[in-house]
Amino acid sequence: MAKYAHQTPILIAIDCIIFGFDGERLKLLLIQRGIEPEMHKWSLMGGFVNAKESLDEAANNILKKLTGLEGVYMEQLQAFGAVYRDPGDRIVSVAYFALIDIHQYEQQLSQEYHAEWFELDKVPPLIFDHNDMVDTARKKLRYKAALHPILFELLPEKFTIPQLQSLYEGIYDSVFDKRNFSRKLLSTGLLIKQKDKDKLNSKKGAFYYVLDKGKYQENFHAFLNLIPNPDHLQFV
Amino acid sequence: MAKYAHQTPILIAIDCIIFGFDGERLKLLLIQRGIEPEMHKWSLMGGFVNAKESLDEAANNILKKLTGLEGVYMEQLQAFGAVYRDPGDRIVSVAYFALIDIHQYEQQLSQEYHAEWFELDKVPPLIFDHNDMVDTARKKLRYKAALHPILFELLPEKFTIPQLQSLYEGIYDSVFDKRNFSRKLLSTGLLIKQKDKDKLNSKKGAFYYVLDKGKYQENFHAFLNLIPNPDHLQFV
Repeated sequence: MAKYAHQTPILIAIDCIIFGFDGERLKLLLIQRGIEPEMHKWSLMGGFVNAKESLDEAANNILKKLTGLEGVYMEQLQAFGAVYRDPGDRIVSVAYFALIDIHQYEQQLSQEYHAEWFELDKVPPLIFDHNDMVDTARKKLRYKAALHPILFELLPEKFTIPQLQSLYEGIYDSVFDKRNFSRKLLSTGLLIKQKDKDKLNSKKGAFYYVLDKGKYQENFHAFLNLIPNPDHLQFV
Repeated sequence: MAKYAHQTPILIAIDCIIFGFDGERLKLLLIQRGIEPEMHKWSLMGGFVNAKESLDEAANNILKKLTGLEGVYMEQLQAFGAVYRDPGDRIVSVAYFALIDIHQYEQQLSQEYHAEWFELDKVPPLIFDHNDMVDTARKKLRYKAALHPILFELLPEKFTIPQLQSLYEGIYDSVFDKRNFSRKLLSTGLLIKQKDKDKLNSKKGAFYYVLDKGKYQENFHAFLNLIPNPDHLQFV
């Protein structure tokens, strides 16, 4: 504290918001808090930043320690800094988020940890401002989904339109009309129909599609037309 | 420090990134740093967060103290937290940014403060990671500009196409072909041509336009086609 001796240091925490898609539903990973205040309540995965860790390093270390998850690419959301956000002390928390394929990380999660996946519309009340953090992260996901192929990264190489619709509905917290969604989606010209069908999830079956990645790069905002309401795109 | 006594507190700073448009060029507001280390070098407007201030309050207080600017709506960009980013101590900085109409704030700035506007392509080397902060903020502006009418908020009620082009070129750090830009812009159907011309900036003069705000709300992503290269849209 040599140079800036008259300044007050503040505790800095990290909170990790991990969204996951299991092919059916968009979910959120939560744990039960292990310390006071608010012990045993549902919480994002959180912890303190040490003096010798960058924020990114701290985020990865905390996620690993609390859930076993490794190698998850998290992106910083923003810092949350209301004075009384944590009743235990003045703490500024830097939130990180990721959207992962649940199946890909099943093994890492399943062992000794008690992290649980909750469907997004069944998330319980969380400690402190964690529900706000989740809402803010969802808004950022909407932005990302509008301009980037992140949603396709969560789907298997070939996927059905109902699968893609379910993912969009989770992100946009909306229910879309099936025929409209399908029509708009196919009108982008960016999906290539396959010959085979998924027959597990309906009697009639649903054709598989793959993304035309070359065309997608050239015309990445064709998918914007899928978004029903610009109000869902308020900038965070 | 009752509840979390074994944790190490860290200094938290704020840095303010103020972009401005003067009707001609996109600019960045800078000051010369008043303390060691790096005294007198060009810097964003920065300072420390006190224990009793939220991050948002600290940002407003610091901006006012260093530049006189009040009532500027700043948005949080993100926290910058590399361990050695400031050679004076371990400091996590939360960056805020805004894009303002320079003329609107001329009076507040002009008096006792020594803040200076720099054209974006003439920004000098800044202290610490401030150039990174500026780059990150520019990327976020590109995102916002793609999905929101923020650019129009910086223009007078009626504006010329060369004015709008100059603003887009500043945000996207690109030079656009005049005829293409104009053609694509008008093809959105969202601009209403006026009867009078701006004759100050060219012999031939340039017609004034106004934004059709009603249509804009309905079809806000028509302007996305103005963006020449998706690579400029990498998410921050």
